[in-house]
Amino acid sequence: MNFASDTTAPAHPKVIDAIAAANNGTAPSYGSDDVTAQVRSMLSDTFESDDFDFWICASGTASNALALSVMCSSTGAIACHEEAHIERDERGAPEFFSGGAKLRLLPGHGARIDEAAWREALAANNPSFVHETPMETLSLTNLTECGTAYSVETVTHYAALAKSGGLNVHLDGARLANALVSTGATPAEMTWKAGIDVVTLGLTKTGAIGCEIILLFGDMRDRFDALKARAKRSGHMPPKMRYLAAQAQAMLGNNLWLDLAGRANQSAKQLADLLCANDGVQLAYPTEGNEVFAVLPPAIEQKIREAEVKCYPWPGGSYRFVCNWATPQNDLDAIRDLLA
Amino acid sequence: MNFASDTTAPAHPKVIDAIAAANNGTAPSYGSDDVTAQVRSMLSDTFESDDFDFWICASGTASNALALSVMCSSTGAIACHEEAHIERDERGAPEFFSGGAKLRLLPGHGARIDEAAWREALAANNPSFVHETPMETLSLTNLTECGTAYSVETVTHYAALAKSGGLNVHLDGARLANALVSTGATPAEMTWKAGIDVVTLGLTKTGAIGCEIILLFGDMRDRFDALKARAKRSGHMPPKMRYLAAQAQAMLGNNLWLDLAGRANQSAKQLADLLCANDGVQLAYPTEGNEVFAVLPPAIEQKIREAEVKCYPWPGGSYRFVCNWATPQNDLDAIRDLLA
Amino acid sequence: MNFASDTTAPAHPKVIDAIAAANNGTAPSYGSDDVTAQVRSMLSDTFESDDFDFWICASGTASNALALSVMCSSTGAIACHEEAHIERDERGAPEFFSGGAKLRLLPGHGARIDEAAWREALAANNPSFVHETPMETLSLTNLTECGTAYSVETVTHYAALAKSGGLNVHLDGARLANALVSTGATPAEMTWKAGIDVVTLGLTKTGAIGCEIILLFGDMRDRFDALKARAKRSGHMPPKMRYLAAQAQAMLGNNLWLDLAGRANQSAKQLADLLCANDGVQLAYPTEGNEVFAVLPPAIEQKIREAEVKCYPWPGGSYRFVCNWATPQNDLDAIRDLLA
Amino acid sequence: MNFASDTTAPAHPKVIDAIAAANNGTAPSYGSDDVTAQVRSMLSDTFESDDFDFWICASGTASNALALSVMCSSTGAIACHEEAHIERDERGAPEFFSGGAKLRLLPGHGARIDEAAWREALAANNPSFVHETPMETLSLTNLTECGTAYSVETVTHYAALAKSGGLNVHLDGARLANALVSTGATPAEMTWKAGIDVVTLGLTKTGAIGCEIILLFGDMRDRFDALKARAKRSGHMPPKMRYLAAQAQAMLGNNLWLDLAGRANQSAKQLADLLCANDGVQLAYPTEGNEVFAVLPPAIEQKIREAEVKCYPWPGGSYRFVCNWATPQNDLDAIRDLLA
Repeated sequence: MNFASDTTAPAHPKVIDAIAAANNGTAPSYGSDDVTAQVRSMLSDTFESDDFDFWICASGTASNALALSVMCSSTGAIACHEEAHIERDERGAPEFFSGGAKLRLLPGHGARIDEAAWREALAANNPSFVHETPMETLSLTNLTECGTAYSVETVTHYAALAKSGGLNVHLDGARLANALVSTGATPAEMTWKAGIDVVTLGLTKTGAIGCEIILLFGDMRDRFDALKARAKRSGHMPPKMRYLAAQAQAMLGNNLWLDLAGRANQSAKQLADLLCANDGVQLAYPTEGNEVFAVLPPAIEQKIREAEVKCYPWPGGSYRFVCNWATPQNDLDAIRDLLA
Repeated sequence: MNFASDTTAPAHPKVIDAIAAANNGTAPSYGSDDVTAQVRSMLSDTFESDDFDFWICASGTASNALALSVMCSSTGAIACHEEAHIERDERGAPEFFSGGAKLRLLPGHGARIDEAAWREALAANNPSFVHETPMETLSLTNLTECGTAYSVETVTHYAALAKSGGLNVHLDGARLANALVSTGATPAEMTWKAGIDVVTLGLTKTGAIGCEIILLFGDMRDRFDALKARAKRSGHMPPKMRYLAAQAQAMLGNNLWLDLAGRANQSAKQLADLLCANDGVQLAYPTEGNEVFAVLPPAIEQKIREAEVKCYPWPGGSYRFVCNWATPQNDLDAIRDLLA
Repeated sequence: MNFASDTTAPAHPKVIDAIAAANNGTAPSYGSDDVTAQVRSMLSDTFESDDFDFWICASGTASNALALSVMCSSTGAIACHEEAHIERDERGAPEFFSGGAKLRLLPGHGARIDEAAWREALAANNPSFVHETPMETLSLTNLTECGTAYSVETVTHYAALAKSGGLNVHLDGARLANALVSTGATPAEMTWKAGIDVVTLGLTKTGAIGCEIILLFGDMRDRFDALKARAKRSGHMPPKMRYLAAQAQAMLGNNLWLDLAGRANQSAKQLADLLCANDGVQLAYPTEGNEVFAVLPPAIEQKIREAEVKCYPWPGGSYRFVCNWATPQNDLDAIRDLLA
Repeated sequence: MNFASDTTAPAHPKVIDAIAAANNGTAPSYGSDDVTAQVRSMLSDTFESDDFDFWICASGTASNALALSVMCSSTGAIACHEEAHIERDERGAPEFFSGGAKLRLLPGHGARIDEAAWREALAANNPSFVHETPMETLSLTNLTECGTAYSVETVTHYAALAKSGGLNVHLDGARLANALVSTGATPAEMTWKAGIDVVTLGLTKTGAIGCEIILLFGDMRDRFDALKARAKRSGHMPPKMRYLAAQAQAMLGNNLWLDLAGRANQSAKQLADLLCANDGVQLAYPTEGNEVFAVLPPAIEQKIREAEVKCYPWPGGSYRFVCNWATPQNDLDAIRDLLA
């Protein structure tokens, strides 16, 4: 029973198949190959737009940091939730890639930024006061670190506020598919139509080996050359790009990414229900994706520990259980039986 | 006829097979998996030592830069050949990862550092003179950028000189296998036995998808935690490490990497011979690996261009032709026929 | 009536005299001059120790950042109060000089770190968990940004906690003299005897033109060469060092720095008293140095504004009034009359 | 007899006087004071233009690095002579301030860039080839490190070549006054009229304590806010700016800076002549400023050493003798007598 992380799961077999299929003869290096060209076309369909540039990267940490490094200067700040992955779990990657930009941390329940705090931060932001570090970018995460989802309305609203203050907007979409399935929004609705300038679209947690796509929309395309230069010098421009592209091809094809996220979300829903069926179990945050955060009474905590169920103690006293596309029904049944 | 780069080749089928085999059930993230454990054991056999730590990385640029960033401080300099990959082809990656270290460029024919220049630079190096940037590290490349190989004797000699000056020694082994096959040296002889402290062992050009291994020998193991921290924050710590490890497993197993390098070297030898069979063709540098650098008379240059043979004009007036494990005999025959 | 900042004040005449006296014939560059040698001797007396190295720097921001850059690695974090100068007012200097270290922000009333929060942060600190950024340094500020002083006991206690967790301890002493006068502690008691490893001793706000001294105590002296290298490459190694040293000489001579801080503190005490003599005025924080933070009722706020008294609105709703060595009694009298 | 460096000299008394005069009452911080305002007006006269922004900085190293950091991106390269101060003597400051830009080194006799090498580098520069680091800026030094001067014609020509390749042009003017006096050019002719975009105008070596002025001309003024942000976070935005401004005021007033440079140049001319009056002495480079580079026969070398004449052995086998505004005629006479 492994609910430790979505990254303990294997890749979907179609991803492996696509890699094998790409392994055919010589191909131009660095993204000039046919598979990468096809990914562009699939992204165009997925996001209902041609007004974008993109870069494929094996790492989520690097994708976020690369994106932010062309959105925020080295003397600016990036606003984000205080529990955001870019703050907590990336060992200073945004600071490193940007050359020393700061993160401005905002509070809010369930890893969603509180609107009042966001408005207050914007009101106090003064780009012409040289002594402080002005915010230049807002980074939202959807699905959030606490498994909650921002609605399209909230993303749109927060992005509009950002823009009224002269900031651009980044979306950390490591679990974007889970948020899309959960909210029913389309990729376009949740991103550029909502005012998102750059999204890092994660496919790794959803079912790839290691495949994230940075999309620059509209005016941000001006920064594509800078993005490539930074990708190059940080070791995120693989010569044999076709194998990364093959992963994207497999995941985007027939919306496999959304199907797999749907499965993971359903498993999480089922898990949340069967946990809550026990007296004293409470959800710390609503289950709006593939993650369940549950506060467990001591007796249940002990059972979980004794059965060596892999899950992650979370700040605030809950446990995080992560489901993925391959979570076996057997594991869910076993949890149910364990707690019965 | 594609001789543009070894990275235009496909991966060896065993690499794909190993990835597929690794795609089996859940596995711990970040290198705690069984495949990675097996790679450690294989490296131990390959390098005849247990006194090492290692990190697997998908990128050669990042592998070099990560290694150098724990070998040289941000206020120090790295000595290397003026045509080294870390100087010419990595868009400032060493400067970026190290936080601003400088490269000290040394001359020498065929991308091999000239001994007199090396001695002179060492004699002038003064770590206690704060106004200049002292060399802290020597970075050698074997196979060099001009397809020549350093002998074990030269590596040993240059490393000993470095150490007498208080410097540590890095080996960029993007094409190490080619140099080993060419010189007949064992991995141990060419690295730690010769005084190399850290090697970045490239498997990508040899036949993997994207797989390089940084090995820290002996005292350098003290810097392994720093290396991991830097790998993490630069996006080179993939959660699903098993798939990277699988590539290494396939390549190191039964010395596949050396077999493939041997094939590439043989193709290059054959290509060099058939080019030189033509009047007026001269090798710019001896062919001591999988690369041929040939100065072509105008008539031959024209034939090559008209036939759209993919090769790369090189500074100094020659053309670079790169062979790889999968270079088809057909292509070599076609070149022979073309020039006949 | 200018209470905007201690940096609007002129320098003490003895500082100017010392600069003029130093302007005599040739002198060795970069700190090998006689004046700098004399400063070493004066620091030895002032801090009752010979076990230190020091560097003089014209900038407080740079002094803090240089000190921190040799105390914390580029992949580590510096714990500090969320209102600390290094976080709020230095435009990311610590991040820049350290190569991307993070600041870990701690709460506490009056810009003094809350003990429970400090203990909690330490308990959660895990240097071997590579995904998060471990704290490596604690930075205290005394006098704090809110004009309060840490006692020697608290500094000693917090430093001991830091060391039990493997962290070293920095003291931002931009207004150290004010804190020493206020608490009655000696320089030695408040620094190395209390467990401070590195102090940036500010003389600029106290009465110099621009003169701060970084002192590395005990084991930290190992990092002096690294400090000098970083000072050099950041433009903080002036060739004509004697003029910086002359400022230090004037300020440390006969404890002028402490005398001037005593005057500033007294002015602040007088100002606090005469403000509080008015109905509805309340101090936001106790006046333990040369700064008064007062919450003003609207009528008084209006008088202050109309009279163009220079002071600074502070987060939380108070006004900051800063006194300095040269604050004229006339200005204090004028405030009293204005509010009468 | 101290010819070690122009920075061993005292400041001109008028500089001290100006500092003392500025030490009068309160003044706004950070350059909003009256003295700084007057410097703007003097610069306007000196450079015959109002189309500039400027920043005063105590450090030459920082001035160069700050200027370059807004002229060249972190993924670009700065072309300069291989013996330039920014390459040899600033401990990696340009790399540090720019966030990892590279220096592209060009050869040329007497520290003047060779035209053919410059044309060749430009011809090979390809900003759209992501794997190499394209030059974005040309940095010239006048007076050069070998005491030679570029003529206005050459500066104009080199700058025009740079611009035809899309590069902007920086002038390291640490000894600009010496070059102006030597060539007879006006400040305007040697800078913006010649195509220089940004100049770092040095006054420290000429006779100030520590005072350099970065001037951004024309379009480069767009980068003034970025320059200030970078000055702030690197500790080069002194609160008590008036004292830096006072130095500039003294030096620019009545063209004192040019007078002092003229004196230094004349001393150098005299020194060169009296050295060359001895058999076997040869100038390594023509004396076109305040520096003499002389190759000395062994007998003279010995005399110089025994008399403890302070001078600096230079790469290539000559000795560097630097004169300054205060070089005593006595010292020159003493050299003459010593060698007689």
